[in-house]
Amino acid sequence: MPISKSDKNLSPADQGEINVQESLSHRDQRHIWHPLTQHKISKEMLAIVKARGSILYDENGKEYIDGIASWYTCMYGHCNPDITGKVAAQMQQLDQVVFSGFTHEPAVKLSEALIPLLPANQEKLFFSDNGSTATEIGVKMALQYHHNLGNDRKVMLAFEDGFHGDTFGAMSVSGLSVYNGPFEEHFIEVVRIPVPTGKNNEQVLRKLESLLKEHKIAGFIYEPLVQGAAAMKMHDAEGLNEILKLCKRHEVICVADEVMTGFGKTGKNFASEYLSVQPDVMCLSKALTAGLLPMAITSCSQKVYDGFYSDEIAKGLFHGHTYSANPLACTAALAGIELLTSKAIQQDIQRVIASHRNFKNKIKDHPKVKNIRTLGVIIAFELDVKMERYGDMRNRLYKYFMDSGVFLRPLGNTIYILAPFTISASELEKIYASIEAVLVEF
Amino acid sequence: MPISKSDKNLSPADQGEINVQESLSHRDQRHIWHPLTQHKISKEMLAIVKARGSILYDENGKEYIDGIASWYTCMYGHCNPDITGKVAAQMQQLDQVVFSGFTHEPAVKLSEALIPLLPANQEKLFFSDNGSTATEIGVKMALQYHHNLGNDRKVMLAFEDGFHGDTFGAMSVSGLSVYNGPFEEHFIEVVRIPVPTGKNNEQVLRKLESLLKEHKIAGFIYEPLVQGAAAMKMHDAEGLNEILKLCKRHEVICVADEVMTGFGKTGKNFASEYLSVQPDVMCLSKALTAGLLPMAITSCSQKVYDGFYSDEIAKGLFHGHTYSANPLACTAALAGIELLTSKAIQQDIQRVIASHRNFKNKIKDHPKVKNIRTLGVIIAFELDVKMERYGDMRNRLYKYFMDSGVFLRPLGNTIYILAPFTISASELEKIYASIEAVLVEF
Repeated sequence: MPISKSDKNLSPADQGEINVQESLSHRDQRHIWHPLTQHKISKEMLAIVKARGSILYDENGKEYIDGIASWYTCMYGHCNPDITGKVAAQMQQLDQVVFSGFTHEPAVKLSEALIPLLPANQEKLFFSDNGSTATEIGVKMALQYHHNLGNDRKVMLAFEDGFHGDTFGAMSVSGLSVYNGPFEEHFIEVVRIPVPTGKNNEQVLRKLESLLKEHKIAGFIYEPLVQGAAAMKMHDAEGLNEILKLCKRHEVICVADEVMTGFGKTGKNFASEYLSVQPDVMCLSKALTAGLLPMAITSCSQKVYDGFYSDEIAKGLFHGHTYSANPLACTAALAGIELLTSKAIQQDIQRVIASHRNFKNKIKDHPKVKNIRTLGVIIAFELDVKMERYGDMRNRLYKYFMDSGVFLRPLGNTIYILAPFTISASELEKIYASIEAVLVEF
Repeated sequence: MPISKSDKNLSPADQGEINVQESLSHRDQRHIWHPLTQHKISKEMLAIVKARGSILYDENGKEYIDGIASWYTCMYGHCNPDITGKVAAQMQQLDQVVFSGFTHEPAVKLSEALIPLLPANQEKLFFSDNGSTATEIGVKMALQYHHNLGNDRKVMLAFEDGFHGDTFGAMSVSGLSVYNGPFEEHFIEVVRIPVPTGKNNEQVLRKLESLLKEHKIAGFIYEPLVQGAAAMKMHDAEGLNEILKLCKRHEVICVADEVMTGFGKTGKNFASEYLSVQPDVMCLSKALTAGLLPMAITSCSQKVYDGFYSDEIAKGLFHGHTYSANPLACTAALAGIELLTSKAIQQDIQRVIASHRNFKNKIKDHPKVKNIRTLGVIIAFELDVKMERYGDMRNRLYKYFMDSGVFLRPLGNTIYILAPFTISASELEKIYASIEAVLVEF
């Protein structure tokens, strides 16, 4: 039984007393419903009380190396003073202001720093608060662009096994929808193609051609080169280029979801830089704000923007969130970009890439290592042992890593590392050692 | 023509030089696409460089009283050191950690402070990042609750002119959908009732009865007592009670969207406290984080939670955002609740209520003042002069206030005040004076 109902009737004094004696993990169970969690099966959440660099500290003093950079966000390390100092200063100056009718320096400076970093055709930034809203806005840009032009196009194209978020629009385009059952009847119409593997490129293009004939496709949303939630599945750049070319030829708005891949993780600033065909729209979040607080940006080309620029008010994009372009989040993002483009971080990225390459060579022929792959600071492989995505075996694997002081979060039988760029060589070695131990123990 | 394309080809030196000479308002136009804005009509955004208490300062040194608390967020004043100090300290300790499998003190403490403040039946908190995601989660809770119970209910009920956000699920339930044209075909099925006015209560109930017979309704989402985006339209508490009773009798999950009304603005902590029937689910954001940074919470009763609590993983709510329950945002929220429940702020609220009451009495019989209404610190009336919501007249009105050093944001011909609780008497007087001047000038 979850502890919850009863305690509300305790006197405040009793409750205070309980709180002093109880662990955070236990107190947590009273009133918090965690994301992506079936609480009857996962009762206890680990309480983290401190984070510094690549290390998380739990309430019992145990340390964990943050091997996935807290969901690919804190790429410059936790509580990095180069970032927190600037945000603390901004908090003294301007905390928040409506972003309709107003602007502010952190947003302007961020736009001036981010635009030169993005593919050359990206010209405008539309702010929101998380990856789901960034992709919702991308989908709305694609649909309304054609609506504004008088084109009858209402279908979205997406990859099988793509993941783009959890709001209704974002769920619609996600192909990875194990748990979307209760909502599927309410989705936008989406048609799908497999990712290009290099081997199937021609078939994928043939399928796309027939879909383009059968459906009135407004936009194509895709995670370029790496599908994160699909367990760091990587696909073929040349195949993706051909898909994008065909889409562009048919005036399909190409929306690159770089929420996971953005900001240096693939070894380039954005995965789209590996491609010769530039996206019309890009979705950014996660590492955008350097792991400090939530924000997202949907960028677009002048062509997309011009599709909304009109004397008719109704042709504008009437989307807005209260804290859009929050000055603190913009400040964190600007500090993050300054770090990303610094010599030190660029050297860190190359160091991690080289380190992963060595580790890959070391384990690639191990009988339990299947399909090992790297791109930038991402390294992933399938543990060749039968298990289900959220099954007991996966949970034992997770526990094994945590017991070893390493926070890795296997996706089914896929083990991957996506650590902060600033992770030290010895911390990386500890992660590798825990993986090698798994290859023995499992 | 928007200035954008050309400047990208300037050398960095040229760009640097331009930046030094240019105003922020002008630099803003190059790369930023603002929310809810048709840029061809609204070219120039006002650059705010500083905020303190109830005052915004623009880049030319002009001051504006923030008469809408930056969209009802910074109710304790801008850059309040009681809040910023705590967030700055938290930034040194723990910036961010995955909230699946982990927890942390700011979230636990926030849950322990917030639950006792909410209606007695609210037991669990589900975190997200903004009002749209809070309502998406509310809708998903209603739909999946019935799905998990094996009930075939897929229709949502909502008020005409309700507003619940801009993502696809949130747009679906919003009745106020002037600019939803390009997306409407993709919406969840929603049936609607008018708000109860006191005069139409019986008709509304009859309509609801017939809708309940004709449709398989899973949930009812409503802004209790005040519909913000519908221009601070207020409705009848007794009528709403009757609607909620009827919904509950039919096992319809009642989702109170208190994103705007929450945290003291109505004179009680939550508008739902004016009602005898408690909601099953509540959506919170905006003032939740005291105007510092984005966060949202969807709370629910034990009954709703239990509908997801199961040995079956698939019956869980598989929704999650990367920065869910961000420790900095939780810290801001906790600081905000401490202020809200302080004697000083409670006195401020009563002071503003009394002040508004006097002002209402002063202008209520003016021939241009129509339908003046107050609830808590909200005061609104219609300027009885013909104009359109986003028309030229509304913009002249907006400009008139701004020229007077008062940031009010008329919704069509509705003028309203929703200032920080901490606004001073003289600042309030200045807002009132600007409204009285409008009654003369317009």
